[in-house]
Amino acid sequence: MDYFPSALENLIDKFASLPGIGRKTAQRLAFYLLTLSDESAKSFADAITEAKQNVRCCYICQNLTDGEACLICRNPRRDAALICVVSDPKGVLAIERSHEYLGTYHVLHGVISPMSNVGPDDIRIAELVARVADGSINEVIMATNPDVEGETTARYISKLLAPFGVKVTRLAYGIPVGSSLEFADDATLMRALEGRQII
Amino acid sequence: MDYFPSALENLIDKFASLPGIGRKTAQRLAFYLLTLSDESAKSFADAITEAKQNVRCCYICQNLTDGEACLICRNPRRDAALICVVSDPKGVLAIERSHEYLGTYHVLHGVISPMSNVGPDDIRIAELVARVADGSINEVIMATNPDVEGETTARYISKLLAPFGVKVTRLAYGIPVGSSLEFADDATLMRALEGRQII
Repeated sequence: MDYFPSALENLIDKFASLPGIGRKTAQRLAFYLLTLSDESAKSFADAITEAKQNVRCCYICQNLTDGEACLICRNPRRDAALICVVSDPKGVLAIERSHEYLGTYHVLHGVISPMSNVGPDDIRIAELVARVADGSINEVIMATNPDVEGETTARYISKLLAPFGVKVTRLAYGIPVGSSLEFADDATLMRALEGRQII
Repeated sequence: MDYFPSALENLIDKFASLPGIGRKTAQRLAFYLLTLSDESAKSFADAITEAKQNVRCCYICQNLTDGEACLICRNPRRDAALICVVSDPKGVLAIERSHEYLGTYHVLHGVISPMSNVGPDDIRIAELVARVADGSINEVIMATNPDVEGETTARYISKLLAPFGVKVTRLAYGIPVGSSLEFADDATLMRALEGRQII
């Protein structure tokens, strides 16, 4: 015997296929699952099936939801004329944590990245353009990550939206609150200077 | 909205309950599963259910198997009078990799560890004693890990088996093949000196 029983090998393979999970970790996780009670193991398996069945994208903003439209798009107190564009659902959570934003979102589910073979048609840009083309949008805030791909995506989308005459803005760059000037990198300091404001 | 849809939150919770998987990693894994096709997600869920249903412990050596007895215990060319005691199924794989050992195994599924509240009755020691009490065993090789718990477990078991007059041995300690004396720790060097052999 130089391997485990086939059902166990299969489970290890499944775990090892997950991103960032190596063979040793996959073994550890599979062994742990075997130590669970029958019900716990079943409820783990069911959680996968149910998440896959019940979670879909909101038909308006493309955020993950278990209904037709997400809670934010259904909320009449949110400003539907204001759209904040983020690259993934975690971005929505991050901005919601600030409790400052009362508009709606648009989740791209990715960023334009020629290195990873992701083009504009592979992410939900067409859906955003359709919302803006509708004419009821006042402002689109680009909140993709402040890296090369996020920046490229933001510029691409702002050019695409220009013909509609909608106001397109970008989250401010600058030094993070609570940090020290000493540790700020050159690019951030430059942006912070450029974006300086009157006190 | 300050959380994901409930089915997704549930799946994240399940992943986060696995050992060594934090909240952020659990999110990453759950998001990844949502990007899989329906069949791939289903086959992941099925792999869990099937491993749990089909994998059990060999009734002789307690190693994981999908039959009644494992392949090693069923193999007539293996010496059933020789038992190598390991703490978990990964130990069996490690020793099998050497292609040197032709006896059988006994898997304890743990080690005695007062710190983790694991006593002798919580691991498969009784099953080992029953095999030795049968009278057909010549030698028991203790191959638990060379740490405090593994050592304690090996000593405990050897005392327990003493009344049966069976030969109980321990894997040799010493400097690893291919390593350098310079980097060997004191305890290992001491054991290597103690266990020195005539060339």
